[in-house]
Amino acid sequence: MTKVKDFITTEDFTKEELMNIIDLSLKIKKAINAGYYPQLLKNKTLGMIFQQSSTRTRVSFETAMEQLGGHAQYLAPGQIQLGGHETIEDTSVVLSKLVDILMARVDKHKSVNDLANNATIPVINAMSDYNHPTQEMGDLCTMIEALPKGKKLEDCKVVFVGDATQVCTSLMMITTKIGMDFVQYGPKKYQLTENLQEIAKNNCKVSGGSFMMTEDEEKAMKDADFIYTDVWYGLYDAELSEEERLAIFYPKYQVTDEMIKKASKDAKFMHCLPASRGEEVTDEVLDADYSIAFEEAGNRLTAMRGLLVYFMGIAEKQEPIDEKEKEMAKETLDDMLRQLDLDFMYKK
Amino acid sequence: MTKVKDFITTEDFTKEELMNIIDLSLKIKKAINAGYYPQLLKNKTLGMIFQQSSTRTRVSFETAMEQLGGHAQYLAPGQIQLGGHETIEDTSVVLSKLVDILMARVDKHKSVNDLANNATIPVINAMSDYNHPTQEMGDLCTMIEALPKGKKLEDCKVVFVGDATQVCTSLMMITTKIGMDFVQYGPKKYQLTENLQEIAKNNCKVSGGSFMMTEDEEKAMKDADFIYTDVWYGLYDAELSEEERLAIFYPKYQVTDEMIKKASKDAKFMHCLPASRGEEVTDEVLDADYSIAFEEAGNRLTAMRGLLVYFMGIAEKQEPIDEKEKEMAKETLDDMLRQLDLDFMYKK
Amino acid sequence: MTKVKDFITTEDFTKEELMNIIDLSLKIKKAINAGYYPQLLKNKTLGMIFQQSSTRTRVSFETAMEQLGGHAQYLAPGQIQLGGHETIEDTSVVLSKLVDILMARVDKHKSVNDLANNATIPVINAMSDYNHPTQEMGDLCTMIEALPKGKKLEDCKVVFVGDATQVCTSLMMITTKIGMDFVQYGPKKYQLTENLQEIAKNNCKVSGGSFMMTEDEEKAMKDADFIYTDVWYGLYDAELSEEERLAIFYPKYQVTDEMIKKASKDAKFMHCLPASRGEEVTDEVLDADYSIAFEEAGNRLTAMRGLLVYFMGIAEKQEPIDEKEKEMAKETLDDMLRQLDLDFMYKK
Repeated sequence: MTKVKDFITTEDFTKEELMNIIDLSLKIKKAINAGYYPQLLKNKTLGMIFQQSSTRTRVSFETAMEQLGGHAQYLAPGQIQLGGHETIEDTSVVLSKLVDILMARVDKHKSVNDLANNATIPVINAMSDYNHPTQEMGDLCTMIEALPKGKKLEDCKVVFVGDATQVCTSLMMITTKIGMDFVQYGPKKYQLTENLQEIAKNNCKVSGGSFMMTEDEEKAMKDADFIYTDVWYGLYDAELSEEERLAIFYPKYQVTDEMIKKASKDAKFMHCLPASRGEEVTDEVLDADYSIAFEEAGNRLTAMRGLLVYFMGIAEKQEPIDEKEKEMAKETLDDMLRQLDLDFMYKK
Repeated sequence: MTKVKDFITTEDFTKEELMNIIDLSLKIKKAINAGYYPQLLKNKTLGMIFQQSSTRTRVSFETAMEQLGGHAQYLAPGQIQLGGHETIEDTSVVLSKLVDILMARVDKHKSVNDLANNATIPVINAMSDYNHPTQEMGDLCTMIEALPKGKKLEDCKVVFVGDATQVCTSLMMITTKIGMDFVQYGPKKYQLTENLQEIAKNNCKVSGGSFMMTEDEEKAMKDADFIYTDVWYGLYDAELSEEERLAIFYPKYQVTDEMIKKASKDAKFMHCLPASRGEEVTDEVLDADYSIAFEEAGNRLTAMRGLLVYFMGIAEKQEPIDEKEKEMAKETLDDMLRQLDLDFMYKK
Repeated sequence: MTKVKDFITTEDFTKEELMNIIDLSLKIKKAINAGYYPQLLKNKTLGMIFQQSSTRTRVSFETAMEQLGGHAQYLAPGQIQLGGHETIEDTSVVLSKLVDILMARVDKHKSVNDLANNATIPVINAMSDYNHPTQEMGDLCTMIEALPKGKKLEDCKVVFVGDATQVCTSLMMITTKIGMDFVQYGPKKYQLTENLQEIAKNNCKVSGGSFMMTEDEEKAMKDADFIYTDVWYGLYDAELSEEERLAIFYPKYQVTDEMIKKASKDAKFMHCLPASRGEEVTDEVLDADYSIAFEEAGNRLTAMRGLLVYFMGIAEKQEPIDEKEKEMAKETLDDMLRQLDLDFMYKK
């Protein structure tokens, strides 16, 4: 098991480690769907720091904790500051003493890094302006569940259509790490940065995967197994006006049924959601039989469960329980409760 | 047991079904008051969507889930959108995969209907601009607990004083469905609409109850067992100014001790709260021995527990647990945990 | 055990009672640190009313409830009103029926008093414009854990440096109650009021402690065991501008390493946090080995656990469980569940 205590980017982990987490996630999903809720996070508390509001991420994390026997605290935008009056370093140290594990959705990637570097408990990056690693873990779960017949992950081609958002970045990272063929089909000015291309190349060297960016639809779609898109405006940058967006991406980069037809005939459509129907994707595609976007949304929860168990597990191993000490502490407490005539509170 | 998966309006249910839910609610209340917390919603998660903030409804639902072994997520106004960037249909499908049951307090009744129609999990209407069915279920619990000696529900007369709010609408629906005598005592322009009168008439035909609207205090109060009121301004419409309100309802429709004296001598006073003391009701009445308004507030929790168990139960029955499959999924997961050296996480 | 149902000020309790709560808090801490989570608050719900937002207090309470088997509801500023449309009296009565215990962080001390006086359940003051009693309970835990060798609490001198904030007030109350030597070292105009001095004197008469206010650094620091500070601007009053603050407190009342050197050589530094680094305290001091400010933050959680168990215990004793009645209520409910074909919901 890895020694990295935080989940900030998949780049910190080997392919094997990532596949372990994904495998664990899928097995927990099967167990819960069958009615067995493994109480692996009993009594544990997750602190959820949100600098922007979110539905999917927040609900997934909160449900995951509860299903596994723990609890999540929602620290909404404005309810907690990162680097305001109190330094982010101090906040990290304090929260490490009050909860067991943290997740943060931040405006600036530096914030989640600072949090992780100063916290003594695990920190999970729940999206920054740089990447979105919990999304990519869930996406891999979804691809595994929807693998074309006879193919392994490593045989698959994944095409991201549109703007190089954080989701695009993260999709590139995981697919090239795993050894898949990754393509970004988008306008030159909106393609992945040179730094990110460097990461892609290095990953492919190790994994045997491939990486390409193109404005050529035919080349992009040829034999594609998964076509993925995201909204056309960044959640972080100065947002483009609707007209500007349309001028850049429409109609060429709108995912249509015609575009999908140019891919492999078993191709699936994916979207991190929420979708702007009629912009980056047509209703026809999002609601098609080949669309697995909603299963993908459900797998946010799948990935969160695996990640929480895995990283909480790493942390708990650092401080193994001494059963003798535990028993003694219990007895001392129970004596005091009897003395205060409060031991009846156990009987419920 | 009914096949309707959602609780949007009591009109979707028979008298027998409603009485079953109420009976269940009262039995759970007794059990919990006696110290027994039935863990019927273990590991289940309720998503609570609020388009307006609320104290009673939110706290009742959250406490109910926790007491029954589950958990509630508070999705505050602004933290989740219904029909904003993402369509309400998409949100419904996504949330169905992330939680087990939903409740929504909405601005427009159409929203809760859309949510229910697209969600695959149960949806409970926690008040719309049309009705307030969880309130009426709690109100029936309160009436049963405060029944005049020797009387059955069907023998009782219920008078709502004032504006035809959603609470008035819902009170009409449940009382006429049960076969009680319902009166709205309020100014003509603020009486129930024709559509609602139609519902009342149809209910009475089946149940043997009666229905009346009047501006005549003597007629209204005669032999009344329960006198009920609500604030004088709609939570949804353009609100009237204080002066306008007073001009319409004051002093005639203010519930006073004198008004109550015109009713049955065992009459009880009810209010959905919060009250604007000195407007629709005097301090004297709200704080009187015959006021059961605060017991009524407590029965919000009573009704939520029964509703959650009942509708979660309907949903769970659709997907019965296969014990063999469950055992196998557990074993597969436990193997993986041992392999990752994480099985120690169970020992707590 | 005390008969006071609420925790509004430590002045309502004897030294022995306070020491019992602190002792209980420390024993629960040891148990949980050793891996034993006593489920003393199983199925219980805490309502958390915040008129101002807060990190430490909210997270501490919420984690405490979950670790002890219960649940906390966060009622954020704006999500619940105290004394708005609904009177605070009515809100108190209603919430008493929907949760088991309350805490409130309020703008005006009167609000938490009104809440406690009208609620039938325990109310914990989580800071007002007057005092901050949960902070002082945690602070005493921290001092006990960091006692100078060979000294008892009663032998220790505690110096608060700076403005007479609520934290200063509460520190004075607990130290003089316990029999310690308390000093406020701050400018005359920012020293404790005459009313508070009266409390200090009365406490010392009983406990044998001592009390002093001074502008003389040498006198203040001599033999001090704990040096404590807080920010230089009140969270409640019209805040002073940065320049005004500096003119009053800087540099004389900034806690520096030089100042600490004038105290006992084993002296420890404390701060309730969040700190304005470079204002009331230097980085050097806050990050020094002798700084126990972060352990102190962790002991917010320690104190909350003890307080919740203690005051919930008092309340539960008022209504002891009748095992026979409980068993009967369970059987009646289970019959109904079987009748509705819902008893399968237990099997999980």
